[in-house]
Amino acid sequence: MAATKPENLSLVVHGPGDLRLENYPIPEPGPNEVLLRMHSVGICGSDVHYWQHGRIGDFVVKKPMVLGHEASGTVVKVGSLVTHLQPGDRVAIEPGAPRETDEFCKIGRYNLSPSIFFCATPPDDGNLCRFYKHNASFCYKLPDNVTFEEGALIEPLSVGIHACRRAGVTLGNKVLVCGAGPIGLVNLLVAKAMGAVQVVVTDLSASRLSKAKEAGADFVLQISKESPQEIASKVEGLLGRKPEVTIECTGAEAAIQAGIYATCPGGTLVLVGLGSEMTNVPLVHAATREVDIKGVFRYCNTWPVAISMLASKSVNVKSLVTHRFPLEKALEAFEASKKGLGLKVMIKCDPNNQDP
Amino acid sequence: MAATKPENLSLVVHGPGDLRLENYPIPEPGPNEVLLRMHSVGICGSDVHYWQHGRIGDFVVKKPMVLGHEASGTVVKVGSLVTHLQPGDRVAIEPGAPRETDEFCKIGRYNLSPSIFFCATPPDDGNLCRFYKHNASFCYKLPDNVTFEEGALIEPLSVGIHACRRAGVTLGNKVLVCGAGPIGLVNLLVAKAMGAVQVVVTDLSASRLSKAKEAGADFVLQISKESPQEIASKVEGLLGRKPEVTIECTGAEAAIQAGIYATCPGGTLVLVGLGSEMTNVPLVHAATREVDIKGVFRYCNTWPVAISMLASKSVNVKSLVTHRFPLEKALEAFEASKKGLGLKVMIKCDPNNQDP
Amino acid sequence: MAATKPENLSLVVHGPGDLRLENYPIPEPGPNEVLLRMHSVGICGSDVHYWQHGRIGDFVVKKPMVLGHEASGTVVKVGSLVTHLQPGDRVAIEPGAPRETDEFCKIGRYNLSPSIFFCATPPDDGNLCRFYKHNASFCYKLPDNVTFEEGALIEPLSVGIHACRRAGVTLGNKVLVCGAGPIGLVNLLVAKAMGAVQVVVTDLSASRLSKAKEAGADFVLQISKESPQEIASKVEGLLGRKPEVTIECTGAEAAIQAGIYATCPGGTLVLVGLGSEMTNVPLVHAATREVDIKGVFRYCNTWPVAISMLASKSVNVKSLVTHRFPLEKALEAFEASKKGLGLKVMIKCDPNNQDP
Amino acid sequence: MAATKPENLSLVVHGPGDLRLENYPIPEPGPNEVLLRMHSVGICGSDVHYWQHGRIGDFVVKKPMVLGHEASGTVVKVGSLVTHLQPGDRVAIEPGAPRETDEFCKIGRYNLSPSIFFCATPPDDGNLCRFYKHNASFCYKLPDNVTFEEGALIEPLSVGIHACRRAGVTLGNKVLVCGAGPIGLVNLLVAKAMGAVQVVVTDLSASRLSKAKEAGADFVLQISKESPQEIASKVEGLLGRKPEVTIECTGAEAAIQAGIYATCPGGTLVLVGLGSEMTNVPLVHAATREVDIKGVFRYCNTWPVAISMLASKSVNVKSLVTHRFPLEKALEAFEASKKGLGLKVMIKCDPNNQDP
Repeated sequence: MAATKPENLSLVVHGPGDLRLENYPIPEPGPNEVLLRMHSVGICGSDVHYWQHGRIGDFVVKKPMVLGHEASGTVVKVGSLVTHLQPGDRVAIEPGAPRETDEFCKIGRYNLSPSIFFCATPPDDGNLCRFYKHNASFCYKLPDNVTFEEGALIEPLSVGIHACRRAGVTLGNKVLVCGAGPIGLVNLLVAKAMGAVQVVVTDLSASRLSKAKEAGADFVLQISKESPQEIASKVEGLLGRKPEVTIECTGAEAAIQAGIYATCPGGTLVLVGLGSEMTNVPLVHAATREVDIKGVFRYCNTWPVAISMLASKSVNVKSLVTHRFPLEKALEAFEASKKGLGLKVMIKCDPNNQDP
Repeated sequence: MAATKPENLSLVVHGPGDLRLENYPIPEPGPNEVLLRMHSVGICGSDVHYWQHGRIGDFVVKKPMVLGHEASGTVVKVGSLVTHLQPGDRVAIEPGAPRETDEFCKIGRYNLSPSIFFCATPPDDGNLCRFYKHNASFCYKLPDNVTFEEGALIEPLSVGIHACRRAGVTLGNKVLVCGAGPIGLVNLLVAKAMGAVQVVVTDLSASRLSKAKEAGADFVLQISKESPQEIASKVEGLLGRKPEVTIECTGAEAAIQAGIYATCPGGTLVLVGLGSEMTNVPLVHAATREVDIKGVFRYCNTWPVAISMLASKSVNVKSLVTHRFPLEKALEAFEASKKGLGLKVMIKCDPNNQDP
Repeated sequence: MAATKPENLSLVVHGPGDLRLENYPIPEPGPNEVLLRMHSVGICGSDVHYWQHGRIGDFVVKKPMVLGHEASGTVVKVGSLVTHLQPGDRVAIEPGAPRETDEFCKIGRYNLSPSIFFCATPPDDGNLCRFYKHNASFCYKLPDNVTFEEGALIEPLSVGIHACRRAGVTLGNKVLVCGAGPIGLVNLLVAKAMGAVQVVVTDLSASRLSKAKEAGADFVLQISKESPQEIASKVEGLLGRKPEVTIECTGAEAAIQAGIYATCPGGTLVLVGLGSEMTNVPLVHAATREVDIKGVFRYCNTWPVAISMLASKSVNVKSLVTHRFPLEKALEAFEASKKGLGLKVMIKCDPNNQDP
Repeated sequence: MAATKPENLSLVVHGPGDLRLENYPIPEPGPNEVLLRMHSVGICGSDVHYWQHGRIGDFVVKKPMVLGHEASGTVVKVGSLVTHLQPGDRVAIEPGAPRETDEFCKIGRYNLSPSIFFCATPPDDGNLCRFYKHNASFCYKLPDNVTFEEGALIEPLSVGIHACRRAGVTLGNKVLVCGAGPIGLVNLLVAKAMGAVQVVVTDLSASRLSKAKEAGADFVLQISKESPQEIASKVEGLLGRKPEVTIECTGAEAAIQAGIYATCPGGTLVLVGLGSEMTNVPLVHAATREVDIKGVFRYCNTWPVAISMLASKSVNVKSLVTHRFPLEKALEAFEASKKGLGLKVMIKCDPNNQDP
């Protein structure tokens, strides 16, 4: 690495509590890759978790890893086999890009491919840096009327799209969303866009619930000491009937239990939040009412849909961004994110263009 | 009610061109039925067709038949086994009510039941009258914030819901709707509600297309002498790509052909409009691109969804009503409808309540 | 009705441990019902459970109830509105018949209708008797080449059909079935009929597993002290890969856990067996691999399919019947069933025709 | 090319009627490819058609092209990035291998990818030769108990799998297959494997129908001068009801019309055979009964399933092979195939191993 001028400033986690801004070399794109000048990268809870704990479950930071996976940037160089992109194209980056065409890829569920590359999941580097190379097939051109920050927000939005698809949200549905953080809110937005007529959002925090209300929640329910059955009963009271779909974004055992009790017979509970390894649940109550329990692992086939939604203004995610920091102040940004200030902290990686 | 004056004024078709207002007896509801005081009944193209031609395909008016099947009213009497409704309830009427629990009913496709009762399809009487009895399970209580006219409009809205469901319209789709009459417009509204990001509506008439634009069409395309391939090409030009879904509401052979050429590989063409018995189509072009061709027969399982949509204001159909006539002037109303004036002509059946 | 001779001998449970053969009056069919002379009725585990415990979960025997719901017989009288059956028709009886056309019925999931009539679920009487009346729409004519006992076995077979449908068993699947009792075996048979290429059946009992082997299991695995993970690993070893589908028929917590570990990413675990109210499961392991967890509540839309399968000899259930008793010896039959002798105990209700 | 010894004898079509055995160089596999020693290659109708006419629709032989796409062989060399195969592995070849990861690939419908490589579709070379290189991800290892010829037959079998999947064939279905050639027969076999209980096969030729009978058809119907409606009526007579699924493998307009008339309301007609560009069909009759019309373009995601089926002996395709020729006699083989002798002509490409 050059001593005189920073080539590729990158935010690197070295282990629990050890986060550093370092200068990395600018990578060279392979034949199917593009090199990108990074513009906007959102901080996700998982980024903060790797910094705080050095691991998430079985994924352990064993060697220094660049963080960041909610990202957009500009193509600066294209590999020899790339035909659909050219330098100057503004793109959103899908962080998961399969390394091989295995059977999961072939059936369209590439998120389940065990050898997939995924930004900022050990050992794969993320894109909180100045320059980053990525599989060109997983970089999507942004229309002029979609901003870089909207492009970066496609990643959390994708969690909502995938969850609502797995839930089978459809016209006329009533929906319960547990949790009013960014993931709860994108599920709210997507459920509405798919035809849900009423959505209740629950959370422990009144301030988070007021954000949900602003984002379009028909009802909010602040949880304090209610039992799971009581929560279910209150949800039914608000909606006038049990919801067809519950999207659980907290991972809390009590919330998962409430989700089972709350969902109507024949409905679906989707687990987005992850808690402890073993969970005690009223499985018989779910089973005998044919309430399906489905998890989500990241997402697949969401970027083109999200871009169409953003370009047509059928969803508004801009207000999710509450804080912005330049890459040079990334450590401050992570502190802010850790404190749970606002909703989404965005890091601006291009010193010459800090626009939204 | 007095013996000397008409008890149950009804609009009866006797044969081609022979439409009469007559006094019928007030029916007595059976154990599973309710008696309704009719409020608002929309005129459908099929009503006009029975009046003009005395038949639609194999359905022939062989004996006098009351017209009307887009309807709402108020419960005045309930059968002995009815528990979910009571006198005073305002209801929307689903005109198709199965007569027996056959295999089509059991699998949830009761619209295909060959012995189904259907208002104003020979020989079954419709509900353009003062008092009408109907299967209580197919009368749906209207919330206070849904008007009688909205209740009557659930019938055409249901055509859109069923067609868009059969099409599998989903988040991010681009959609082509052929025809800007009431059925084209409800398909436009429903497609948007299900997550379509852009809809093109085509028609021969500029004035109809301006209604489509008002109703939310992203693009309109006035057809004159273009070939089906040229129409397909223009649609692709407007949308930036071929639509995933085409909903054909005209029945014209050229429009069906255009629908096949226009739809993207792996997409779906839904046939709502009906034309001549035999149709000449580029079937190989559809088949080798796996464009599915699906028809719709009326609808099923749409009323509860439509009521939820109307109650939550997630769809606006009120502006479809452009003309209103009291039942006594039903013949004038049919003349207006025949001339194609406006979009939807509504007949007000209750002399004491002519509100929307 | 005559006092001196038994008209309608019926097997009645009065409470825990209190099972009696009593003389009931012969019922009169309503307009949509048929009266049947019962022929063959299988004993189900739930019948034995009501006899032993007087309840199953929230379903409590509060007044005397006739047992039996796996049944076939002959029409002796038809209600005034019945057109598809006539006296002399041999029929299989679907024990669940909806009482009203609610929204679950309309969408084709009538098994979820809360007010459904169901034979031998309190307070509804079953058909372990000489004469029984039932909703005619839920009596299905048997072809000449299907025996009464096959007709009665459609009920357990239906559990397999519904479970395998909910699981989405399809061509080329490998399947794990936990439990080698009658329900495990019908799931094995149905999975194979739907295109499964290899099925492993697990059980604690070697003798049950040998029945599974005879019935077509490709592999059997006798469980003793293995951990859930070890069972999953052995299943994968036998099949050469993780199964796409697991059908859990025991209700044991360890088996449910094993089912989650065993199923491949993107696969489905169906819960047929029911255990205790709360279950401790590795939900994160299921969720992050998108293993769906689905329960079944009885079945719907299975009788016509089962009859087609039996008539075409594409499934063989005859060998499931291992014991037969005349109705007069029903108490002996229940003792045999309680001891777990053989697989299926069949009670012959017609003193003049005890053929299979 | 070497004059002294043939390195890579290949069957090359140069234009209409111009078929030559030529010596080609042995290709070098790229990083993601494998080099194969070809063993068995079936002759398909399309191979014969390119030889006779030099084109199929818009696909025109503009430069010499090696024929053959129903193939199996042995790995002799692996590219640098290939990990799942090694020299000596016996493999079946999926002839369609996407060139880029486009949106069709990502959603699991890679057969619709417009830039896909496909053996023996101009301008892509096929594998009727001694040595052939292919995308390693689309070469599937054969178990020891599956022969090379079975491996080659996976290609036509895949047409059946894809068509039956698109049709949604499921437990208890009755199925009409139009056409008793190899494609009709594989559809018959697959429909049965997916749970169809009865299949009728129609054809003009009595000898072909006797093959269908041997292969498991429950009924055969020889067509002579019947109208489409009469054919539909006879099919209903044989099956006792209208089939839920019709699989049309002839491409004849009359057969497509018959398929629409024959299929039951709510059923599906799949178009496998291709006829002239425009087809005159009773579209209203299909639409108003909700009979879906779906085409197939080749197949996707079928090889792993087919291998599982063949390994478990749940389908028997061996008897489809009626003629065998060594590669040196490929022109004789094509003459035999053109004459319509037998069902499937297999070319043996390995001079040292001509086993099935």
